[in-house]
Amino acid sequence: MPIADLAARVRTGDRRALAQAITLVESTRPDHREQAEALLAALLPHTGKGVRIGISGVPGVGKSTFIEAFGLHVIGQGHKVAVLAIDPTSQRTGGSILGDKTRMEMLSRDISAFIRPSPAGTTLGGVARRTREAMLLVEAAGFDVVIVETVGVGQSETAVADMVDLFLLLLPPAGGDELQGIKKGIVELADMIVVNKADGDLANAARHAVAEYRHALSLLRPANANWRVPILSCSALNNLGIDSIWDGIGQYRRILGDDGSIAKRRAEQAQAWMWNEIRESLITAFQADPAVRAELSGLERAAADSSVTPGAAARRLLDLFRHR
Amino acid sequence: MPIADLAARVRTGDRRALAQAITLVESTRPDHREQAEALLAALLPHTGKGVRIGISGVPGVGKSTFIEAFGLHVIGQGHKVAVLAIDPTSQRTGGSILGDKTRMEMLSRDISAFIRPSPAGTTLGGVARRTREAMLLVEAAGFDVVIVETVGVGQSETAVADMVDLFLLLLPPAGGDELQGIKKGIVELADMIVVNKADGDLANAARHAVAEYRHALSLLRPANANWRVPILSCSALNNLGIDSIWDGIGQYRRILGDDGSIAKRRAEQAQAWMWNEIRESLITAFQADPAVRAELSGLERAAADSSVTPGAAARRLLDLFRHR
Repeated sequence: MPIADLAARVRTGDRRALAQAITLVESTRPDHREQAEALLAALLPHTGKGVRIGISGVPGVGKSTFIEAFGLHVIGQGHKVAVLAIDPTSQRTGGSILGDKTRMEMLSRDISAFIRPSPAGTTLGGVARRTREAMLLVEAAGFDVVIVETVGVGQSETAVADMVDLFLLLLPPAGGDELQGIKKGIVELADMIVVNKADGDLANAARHAVAEYRHALSLLRPANANWRVPILSCSALNNLGIDSIWDGIGQYRRILGDDGSIAKRRAEQAQAWMWNEIRESLITAFQADPAVRAELSGLERAAADSSVTPGAAARRLLDLFRHR
Repeated sequence: MPIADLAARVRTGDRRALAQAITLVESTRPDHREQAEALLAALLPHTGKGVRIGISGVPGVGKSTFIEAFGLHVIGQGHKVAVLAIDPTSQRTGGSILGDKTRMEMLSRDISAFIRPSPAGTTLGGVARRTREAMLLVEAAGFDVVIVETVGVGQSETAVADMVDLFLLLLPPAGGDELQGIKKGIVELADMIVVNKADGDLANAARHAVAEYRHALSLLRPANANWRVPILSCSALNNLGIDSIWDGIGQYRRILGDDGSIAKRRAEQAQAWMWNEIRESLITAFQADPAVRAELSGLERAAADSSVTPGAAARRLLDLFRHR
């Protein structure tokens, strides 16, 4: 199908065309990259209207159940919801999270929802770039709430926070000792914290966890003077508290939309994305250079064991690269 | 002076030769860079024996008083102490911190101490590289305790933590609300936390601050299973508690020396340093390219206002760079 036709069909919200378009931006074949570029250029004017929400949480926190309940609630408010994922560990298997069809069964059957597993890939940078592009495509297809999900494995949270308007961290209803397992750097990324599983035997633990997290967070400097990171609780299983979370997101959009913070964040994300692409391309070309490859591991070892200064090792490799 | 002679004089601990050698590695002139490279290569086998300590703290925490008291104590134990600084904000003024001669007056007059202000520079990367190289030079000159000081301005703490064996964070004796001003990311870098000014009217506040910090830190996952970040207090003014800090550093060196952590950290630092140099050189060459410069700001703006995808902007600039 010519790219102009594909673009037109994506804009009508055609799910097959959208899936095909995402497959195209996920491809690493050079001719596909060129077509993907043309497709994105054609659709770019129709992107940017969605609210972009990142969601992360450690395994077992009930992420799928939460996204299903949240997605269905948002659809009930008249929105269309797309769920994308970032999982650099999925390698070539085609995505380990969201790959399983039994997850989010209700949501995946809803006509107003579009769910796409993580693209396969070996580097986080590559996976993140393709997810950013998929985000533009689902927006162009009329999905006005875009959720980017990630597993809680460190770096991927930063990648997600760097592509969304709001980063929501889902935490388990555990207090005290178990809190220690959560990386501080991740908490710092959060624009909203939600303690899930506030139900049954865990209701009490969830209340304590909210208080503990509130205390821990009071020790941090807020990233934005106009936004105090709220700590909410919910039971995704019993569908309790989901409405307050969506309301909180609405507040966030009003306050940080009005003061220009979201527009600024998006402009900065776009520039950072451009520079990341440049840096990755430059270092990829460097690492692929035959003259560099011939000496790289030897010089890396020499720098590590101090038989050469890191500066001298770098200069030697850069000379090889320049004079190839 | 020929480089071999300069190297030999540095090794004897000659302070003038050392100062001259540091000036050489700080120079950006290409012929100086080459000489600096030769000097570092000659001295490299005689480096690495020092304990490398990073010290940071917000303005007003009493950093100079602390370093003076600490340095004199360490000299009293038979060591030779070098104090270097990183301050990327010093620009061309020749270093705003440590530039002032009235700071650390006693320490600066001590024959066993060597104090060097921050190199001038506009980028943190450049300032950090020159400080890393100066660190090798002072080690070769026989200084076995190297302190790298930085002002508390965010990124520079990471640069310091990435070049030392132990990062010591100096905190004010403030509890509750004032704690909020301290960036979480910085606390996370610390291998040791010291509350200063535990004297006079502030002694009580310092005690509370230690308890508060301990609680806050108990919520974090330790970076190294064998090392629980200690939170100590001292009065640099009254010279109280300085000995415990030096003892704590000794413990740190024993425990993380025995389990190989310090050697591993140094090897990783050297490799990261090499890659940083490579990345910086590549991006510098890219940014200096005339074809890139002609279109850069236009494409950066276009990416920020979404009139072009960041990926397409990057690709356009990379094409200009490759086909120059």
